Amino acid sequence: MLGEGVHDGDRHGVALDALESLLGERFTRSSAVRLAHGRGEAFHADMPPDAVVFPRSTAEVQAVVRLCAMQRVPLIAFGAGSSLEGNVAAVAGGVTLDLTAMDAILAVNDADMDCAVQPGVTREALNAHLRDAGLFFPIDPGANATIGGMVATRASGTNAVRYGTMRDNVLWLTVVTADGSVVRTARRARKSSAGYDLTRLFVGSEGTLGIVTEIGLRLHGQPEKIAAASVAFDSLDGAVRSVVEILQIGVPVARVEILDAAMVGAVNAYSKTGFAERPSLLFEFHGSEAGVREQAETVAMLTEANGGWGFEWALRTEDRNRLWAARHHAYHAAQGLRPGSRLIVTDVCVPIARLTECLVETHADIAAAGIVAPIVGHVGDGNFHVFLTVDPDNEAEIAQARELNDRLVARALAMDGTCTGEHGIGLGKQDKLVDELGSEAVALMRRIKQALDPHNILNPGKIFRFDQETSQ
Amino acid sequence: MLGEGVHDGDRHGVALDALESLLGERFTRSSAVRLAHGRGEAFHADMPPDAVVFPRSTAEVQAVVRLCAMQRVPLIAFGAGSSLEGNVAAVAGGVTLDLTAMDAILAVNDADMDCAVQPGVTREALNAHLRDAGLFFPIDPGANATIGGMVATRASGTNAVRYGTMRDNVLWLTVVTADGSVVRTARRARKSSAGYDLTRLFVGSEGTLGIVTEIGLRLHGQPEKIAAASVAFDSLDGAVRSVVEILQIGVPVARVEILDAAMVGAVNAYSKTGFAERPSLLFEFHGSEAGVREQAETVAMLTEANGGWGFEWALRTEDRNRLWAARHHAYHAAQGLRPGSRLIVTDVCVPIARLTECLVETHADIAAAGIVAPIVGHVGDGNFHVFLTVDPDNEAEIAQARELNDRLVARALAMDGTCTGEHGIGLGKQDKLVDELGSEAVALMRRIKQALDPHNILNPGKIFRFDQETSQ
Repeated sequence: MLGEGVHDGDRHGVALDALESLLGERFTRSSAVRLAHGRGEAFHADMPPDAVVFPRSTAEVQAVVRLCAMQRVPLIAFGAGSSLEGNVAAVAGGVTLDLTAMDAILAVNDADMDCAVQPGVTREALNAHLRDAGLFFPIDPGANATIGGMVATRASGTNAVRYGTMRDNVLWLTVVTADGSVVRTARRARKSSAGYDLTRLFVGSEGTLGIVTEIGLRLHGQPEKIAAASVAFDSLDGAVRSVVEILQIGVPVARVEILDAAMVGAVNAYSKTGFAERPSLLFEFHGSEAGVREQAETVAMLTEANGGWGFEWALRTEDRNRLWAARHHAYHAAQGLRPGSRLIVTDVCVPIARLTECLVETHADIAAAGIVAPIVGHVGDGNFHVFLTVDPDNEAEIAQARELNDRLVARALAMDGTCTGEHGIGLGKQDKLVDELGSEAVALMRRIKQALDPHNILNPGKIFRFDQETSQ
Repeated sequence: MLGEGVHDGDRHGVALDALESLLGERFTRSSAVRLAHGRGEAFHADMPPDAVVFPRSTAEVQAVVRLCAMQRVPLIAFGAGSSLEGNVAAVAGGVTLDLTAMDAILAVNDADMDCAVQPGVTREALNAHLRDAGLFFPIDPGANATIGGMVATRASGTNAVRYGTMRDNVLWLTVVTADGSVVRTARRARKSSAGYDLTRLFVGSEGTLGIVTEIGLRLHGQPEKIAAASVAFDSLDGAVRSVVEILQIGVPVARVEILDAAMVGAVNAYSKTGFAERPSLLFEFHGSEAGVREQAETVAMLTEANGGWGFEWALRTEDRNRLWAARHHAYHAAQGLRPGSRLIVTDVCVPIARLTECLVETHADIAAAGIVAPIVGHVGDGNFHVFLTVDPDNEAEIAQARELNDRLVARALAMDGTCTGEHGIGLGKQDKLVDELGSEAVALMRRIKQALDPHNILNPGKIFRFDQETSQ
């Protein structure tokens, strides 16, 4: 180990040379590769790392962590690059571990309905693999994210109303900690009360507490029958009210998405669909043949009673897939409303009783600001996304969009909601985390970070502001 | 603050006097009260605290914690006293906070299906309160535990197969930390990805990281229809196999309990029921009228195909209640098999594919040891309890029962299971926690403990062995 007074750059150089010897061609300082790893999906400043490595095993990740830990070089885990809050930016340089080559499905246990995967497996690849076993992994954040990335941001998405989020569907993790130890957080039992819930501590920690190298997931049986439906409303209020009633009487809807009129328009233009350009709900039902029919009938009745019209079934697989593909393209559809724009994507989540009010006030705010910003949301959870289209060269407009986001978060917090339903804190919402939980709760989080990563080498500058003091 | 070299006893005395001034009659050193607070339900040595206090508000808990923290006096939170692993024993003396007077239901939000309660509310009191709102709180560990205690041990019980455990149904917590800060762990949104999951860190921490003073819970709509059923089998294997198939095809059973023949016999004797004394499954179905019928038909078919017989419906509320009351009295029924005995209660949880093997081997082990020890389990989760009846005055028998427990845990761990499905670690399973997760994972937990409670004043000696060094 180098002594005091050695410049960071020298230390980094020592570590990088050692990594190059260790990994050969799976180490690179190429600027194109670095740049591609210094950004997520949405609009944040690019911050490339000093080098990118492509490990293939837990042992290799451990070796990389040990070399970097010795020289106090930052380490950033990277999957599909689909995060939205600058979660993978290399704020203090360092080494990005691209884990996409660790894409093995290690085991599928049919009877136990669980599996073990490496972090680079994507959710689509996993579900393709599971198809023949009659199982599926329900969490669907939209993007074809890696399971590792989904663990890191505590992802959820369209199916969470029925199947929960990553919080609920991760059984155990293998994690390489900041000192290069390999820890397994839990056994394969469906539940446990054995000590602190380390699994849940790492889920949503955005790579700041350890690097996840294996993941145990809970799986679900493929439903006998799946059907979808769409229904339009003249007002957001009726749409939200129907969903509250549907949940209260316990209809186990698998998905229920809300699109505002602007979002429906964007989807129609992008996906050549013909939905009425009104606030709309999209549903998916899972169950037995009879169960799905009963669910859909109840939903048709309740939506109609709340002013819904044009309830349309999508019973055939191709119709259903077209409907959900249109929903999944919402991001690009929003961008398509303003060619050349980039998106500032934000999401909040509020108690569902406040959702209409939150949406209506946000609409008024968007209209007053004159920004094109369609809305889509996981209404069953009270969670919605605003896609703020901005001209990337127009500083004033970007500032205006950020202020709109500030007001949106303040509004959600005033309603006892959260500043981020499923995108994480990353770089973008650090101040808002303090607004949400208070400085004492955030201080508690920092004490955990300090205890597990005393030199702040794991994804430094995420969740908490980068602090030179603790990064030594 | 007192200086170095002051004897612990003096410090404790200073704190206790201050607490007496603060709380008056709600402070006691009565030996009967102390003794009643130094034990849980099952058989562990009694370890009474030096005093018991009965706070009535978060502010009072905070004042108690501050006074005790200043003098490094241990603090133990106490609810119904129904824990089973010595979780409330005052290993190092100190002050027990009896939170049963903090039993207010602070808010019920119908549309959001959530509520806020103080920790002393019992689950039965909560459900009585919710009845008229058409809502219920599903977690049912058997005992009429307090919600605070259920948070502390990450309780689950009979409904977990459908509704999850305390892990899944706590939305947020207000916690007084070791330094007397009051922290709220999350907002009221249904989900969030705002920083580390502090809520899940405190759930299951057995009072070692903070004292919970308010709890936000997720509620569920009362099902339109509830029905129950029982079915007997000639072998455990057929019973478990049916459950695997039932879960695989996605029947949303609300409860599915397995009783071995000995347990059925004990239940019949205690509750005057007439179940066939064979391995049996008890089911509960929640849903619409048609949904419940469909579930029950599928279950009848699958159990029959696996050798089940005598499928018996309990459609009427009173029949259903009698069936579940019989199940709930399993603890006392087991004790009734040997008048004068006490119970050493243990539970493990294994992947369900290994459950039959684990049960069969455990049966053989019980038979070889000649101990009366009926078994009941939450079979859908792979979780089961063994009630080891022991003569409290027979040291040899107690030792033999403990060895049987050791072998049971080793067996469960060898099957990738956990040493405790829902009772926690407490005093009883500290070595087994290390066996289960390894010393590095437990070291990680200790670092978290150290970061949040540097002087080890919060329920010292639980989860981890009591360490004089860190308790200063």
